[in-house]
Amino acid sequence: MHTDLVAALDIGGTKIAGALVDGDGGILVRAQRATPAREDGDTVMAAVDQVLGELTAAPLWGGVAALGIGSAGPVDASAGTVSPVNVPGWRGYPLVERARDAVGGLPVELIGDGVAITAAEHWQGAARGHDNALCMVVSTGVGGGLVLDGRLHPGPTGNAGHIGHISVDLDGDPCPCGSRGCVERIASGPNIARRALADGWRPGPDGETSAAAVAAAARAGDPVAVASFERAAQALAAGVAATATLVEIDIAVIGGGVGKAGDVLFTPLRRALERYATLSFVRRLTVVPARMGTDAGLVGAAAAALAGHADRTGTATAGV
Amino acid sequence: MHTDLVAALDIGGTKIAGALVDGDGGILVRAQRATPAREDGDTVMAAVDQVLGELTAAPLWGGVAALGIGSAGPVDASAGTVSPVNVPGWRGYPLVERARDAVGGLPVELIGDGVAITAAEHWQGAARGHDNALCMVVSTGVGGGLVLDGRLHPGPTGNAGHIGHISVDLDGDPCPCGSRGCVERIASGPNIARRALADGWRPGPDGETSAAAVAAAARAGDPVAVASFERAAQALAAGVAATATLVEIDIAVIGGGVGKAGDVLFTPLRRALERYATLSFVRRLTVVPARMGTDAGLVGAAAAALAGHADRTGTATAGV
Repeated sequence: MHTDLVAALDIGGTKIAGALVDGDGGILVRAQRATPAREDGDTVMAAVDQVLGELTAAPLWGGVAALGIGSAGPVDASAGTVSPVNVPGWRGYPLVERARDAVGGLPVELIGDGVAITAAEHWQGAARGHDNALCMVVSTGVGGGLVLDGRLHPGPTGNAGHIGHISVDLDGDPCPCGSRGCVERIASGPNIARRALADGWRPGPDGETSAAAVAAAARAGDPVAVASFERAAQALAAGVAATATLVEIDIAVIGGGVGKAGDVLFTPLRRALERYATLSFVRRLTVVPARMGTDAGLVGAAAAALAGHADRTGTATAGV
Repeated sequence: MHTDLVAALDIGGTKIAGALVDGDGGILVRAQRATPAREDGDTVMAAVDQVLGELTAAPLWGGVAALGIGSAGPVDASAGTVSPVNVPGWRGYPLVERARDAVGGLPVELIGDGVAITAAEHWQGAARGHDNALCMVVSTGVGGGLVLDGRLHPGPTGNAGHIGHISVDLDGDPCPCGSRGCVERIASGPNIARRALADGWRPGPDGETSAAAVAAAARAGDPVAVASFERAAQALAAGVAATATLVEIDIAVIGGGVGKAGDVLFTPLRRALERYATLSFVRRLTVVPARMGTDAGLVGAAAAALAGHADRTGTATAGV
């Protein structure tokens, strides 16, 4: 069987990961650098160039058909630029052009990191076989992406599925984005911990105040910890239900650190979803944990590169 | 120039309108009956059959290629059934099959009424030339539909774009749909009037307590009436911003009775949109009044029929 080979980059605020990925999603070669997130733009790009340099030096490179990039957002896929919130040296940075130069002019596909995770879950993970899906990362922030009519829906600028910044509480707390009552402002890990502490939860002897520590306390029956997860679940349910009501998804996949909390999150989330997803056409909606691990961003960027390659050559790529 | 001819039905709780529509959206033949909304399902279908009977008897009928139906929802386009809230005799009613029998086996396209309005605004109205748009009807209820990547996005069951029933106030007032704080519960005409009355607004000598009367009072400077429209505008802005953040639309078109209120609605709506649509990729979003009149449902149903016909025959239909 012929399997295409593509290169993939996953660019975040802490690391820049690269890989060569085959047509089945297998990772054949890896490279990685820390993100010099506080440095100027050229220094950040130099780290990207080092990762790409390792990949282009690999013996397999000759078979690579395209490069896919999943980047922390916002991105602008139509302009080929990125402005990651946590990388202030890159504002409207022409990443696509620079990366294309570094890989000898190969086609480059740019998508946001939430869209990349979604591509991976749809290709190989929990959304596989679903034509209409929302995939989310609930972690330090809340991101996401959409599959509609069987295909990734990045939107014109590659940012569609930004569920963390829809308001589900129009008079709610101010969000750093400038809006109020955003899903992220209620459901992200730091906000789960902040709310638990404000309501009287105290960490154990290790002093750990992460959302994971709150989850452990909730599993042990601490009512304040339970309540903080229930509130997060309520906001996630309102956001997932809104998405289903707007675009008709039948599955929501939740990953990221908070997504790993298990029943402490999913039990109140499924209960709340019944309250918010009321119309007949959204009642079959299910919500499940993500299946892809830490390689999701790389695998998703590869999926986007393979799909772009298939569009250009008129060949089919099953499942992407 | 060859223009296809299609038949269209617009089925609502008060009337069943039918027409023959040409490939430019021109209405050539009309038929209409009152909807016997409180009668049994067969009686309602008999009224549909009378409308279709008038159309099939028209001399032009021989050139008709397909039938498009826009129906009050919920609909299930995949099953071909409808369950309009205001027509209790139809629950999972096999409208597509029955209508196909009545038109001699022609292809039938079923969409929800919000999707139909959207098809019309995209083809001939305010969303023309926009590849990513939300079109809304703000009236007794709040409905809508989406255009994504240049095409109508009805979703698998034909209900996508149901913005009236997304929650923008997760702890808010109960909505008849079963959820809380829905856009419709805050922004529909009856809710604008209800809130104004509850807050102390009193109607004029004519005793009129409609949203149009509240709009007139707001234009005359009544602060309670102004505040009720501002609250509706805030909920609409949160819903429109959520939609843009999720699927990247660049225009929102607002029609229906409340949409006709003019600056009393659109000025606070545009102001509120700046507060809720904060991410870089949604800041260019504009909101404009609808342009299609009372024939929007018929024209949109015709657009869906023409698009289906084009898909089957492999021909292009510009603008649909």
